[in-house]
Amino acid sequence: MAEPKFDVLGIGNAIVDVIATAEEDFLVREGLIKGSMRLIETDEAERLYGAMGQAVQTSGGCAGNTAAGVASFGGRAAFIGKVADDGLGRVYRHDMHALGIDFETKPLIGGEPTARSMILITPDGERTMNTYLGAAQLLSPDDIDEAAVGAARITYLEGYLWDRPQAKAAFRKAAKVAHAAGRKVSLTLSDSFCVDRFRDEFLGLIRDGSVDVLFANLAELHALYQTADLDTAISALRADARIAAVTAGADGAFVISRENVEVVPAYPVERIVDTTGAGDLFAAGFLYGLAHGTPLATAAKLGHLAAGEVIGHIGPRPAVSLKGLAQQAGLHIE
Amino acid sequence: MAEPKFDVLGIGNAIVDVIATAEEDFLVREGLIKGSMRLIETDEAERLYGAMGQAVQTSGGCAGNTAAGVASFGGRAAFIGKVADDGLGRVYRHDMHALGIDFETKPLIGGEPTARSMILITPDGERTMNTYLGAAQLLSPDDIDEAAVGAARITYLEGYLWDRPQAKAAFRKAAKVAHAAGRKVSLTLSDSFCVDRFRDEFLGLIRDGSVDVLFANLAELHALYQTADLDTAISALRADARIAAVTAGADGAFVISRENVEVVPAYPVERIVDTTGAGDLFAAGFLYGLAHGTPLATAAKLGHLAAGEVIGHIGPRPAVSLKGLAQQAGLHIE
Repeated sequence: MAEPKFDVLGIGNAIVDVIATAEEDFLVREGLIKGSMRLIETDEAERLYGAMGQAVQTSGGCAGNTAAGVASFGGRAAFIGKVADDGLGRVYRHDMHALGIDFETKPLIGGEPTARSMILITPDGERTMNTYLGAAQLLSPDDIDEAAVGAARITYLEGYLWDRPQAKAAFRKAAKVAHAAGRKVSLTLSDSFCVDRFRDEFLGLIRDGSVDVLFANLAELHALYQTADLDTAISALRADARIAAVTAGADGAFVISRENVEVVPAYPVERIVDTTGAGDLFAAGFLYGLAHGTPLATAAKLGHLAAGEVIGHIGPRPAVSLKGLAQQAGLHIE
Repeated sequence: MAEPKFDVLGIGNAIVDVIATAEEDFLVREGLIKGSMRLIETDEAERLYGAMGQAVQTSGGCAGNTAAGVASFGGRAAFIGKVADDGLGRVYRHDMHALGIDFETKPLIGGEPTARSMILITPDGERTMNTYLGAAQLLSPDDIDEAAVGAARITYLEGYLWDRPQAKAAFRKAAKVAHAAGRKVSLTLSDSFCVDRFRDEFLGLIRDGSVDVLFANLAELHALYQTADLDTAISALRADARIAAVTAGADGAFVISRENVEVVPAYPVERIVDTTGAGDLFAAGFLYGLAHGTPLATAAKLGHLAAGEVIGHIGPRPAVSLKGLAQQAGLHIE
């Protein structure tokens, strides 16, 4: 097997984030569930944009953010996702290339515009996402670059892809190609409502070995096993998954393998400004560690380091070099 | 004279900022002068965008930022500036309206795109701007809403408008309309290279009474009077200007009137992340104070408060309510 060209290949919705602060009562008035992601259509996107405050536009998307994190650690990252041939699509492509990420997916011509997610940041730093998928949902199996997937140690997929039939087919193809090439497949459950929509299918992927490394937060874990009891959920996940990392905010992460369940504490965080990208960046650190053969606990520490950086400022991607932070923390990997 | 509808009406280039961090050596390689603003054309804009890092897009522009600051203090603000009928133009309009700013200038249809400024933030927090003016430079005298200018206590104009003939004509018309209505006119010199380009004309405006309130930083003041000696420059300005505020970074500001020169110290700042908008927000606080009849020193304190907030984060506009900050600092104005 050839030496892999990429540490991590992310596949997901290519989304530009439109970020504004909002008070709690704005969420109440709009009937929004804090911390969740909902899909919206054009009319609602226009209406909500008109109602929300002054915003900042920046490239985002779950797997895209993870690829950005891997690149920031000094890893070799690639991304597959669909943008339109429009202004926001050019912004997205620019940002990926500026980070040194391999991103060659052809843009959608003459169809729906590039996806955007209107993200409302409440004073507690929590984010509530309202996503118009646009071109992103037209990611299709034809967009899956088999050579790239075969050349990546780990292919990382978003649960969000499951929301649209073509993207889901692309997801399945990528997982198959990766395993056929002897590579690993990783999945993030993305969101507890996403888990509610596709629980059985996600459990199937985990149980049948389609997924080697699973990411979830506590809400997603509870949604997956439909239990409020953490021990029950952890035990169930341990029986089903090969490797899993369950993030628990300030309490750190549960790192789960068939042999062991370990709690890896998070680093203290000075202040939480915007939690957008926290899970994506945890995954970036964890996968970067795994790709370089670190123990699972070290990989989780790299994840905490990256998540801790991204929640300290507005925006879902690192503002400083994660490689530098890892060196300072004594976690540098050559 | 009717009670003014607006505290401050800003007229300037309507620009979307494209902000990325950059190392010092990037500026050296690109031949850029740190802290300055240069105008670039389409080809150079494309090339530089390709070379710069992952960016954040957000509404900016000198007078637009000042209007945003006035609104954040709870003041009544209006803005006149030209965007195109494109994606960035819609972002700009949305952001102004979201802040409660009156902004009714008709967009440019089928011409050049909305202006953008590529802003490089070096590790010391200094910003270096590369501006493609696009639609903004087509602001014309027809765009000057005479009723709005007549209904504003202070009309605030950017020196940058002087770079294009139509915008300059619009500037002259606005100043004339304001004075005819018994209102005040304020000018910011914008940039030391801008002063180099238009020194005699700016001095003419200050000396002939076209400008009631002048803003400059130290570099602009030295450029205006072509002297390295601060006392000489301050004395010259005192003889020429009615009211002037000269910002001196951490050293505070010189507040200059015919009667007096006073140094108003700045508030201590925890950390400098991005100086973009510092001068614009100082002007916002100062003008908000003047519009509400505060002493000049109090107006300068409001200016320092606003500038101190905006340099603590990425982006040229306040991230929190300046009204709230002013209340905490005991500077609240009913």
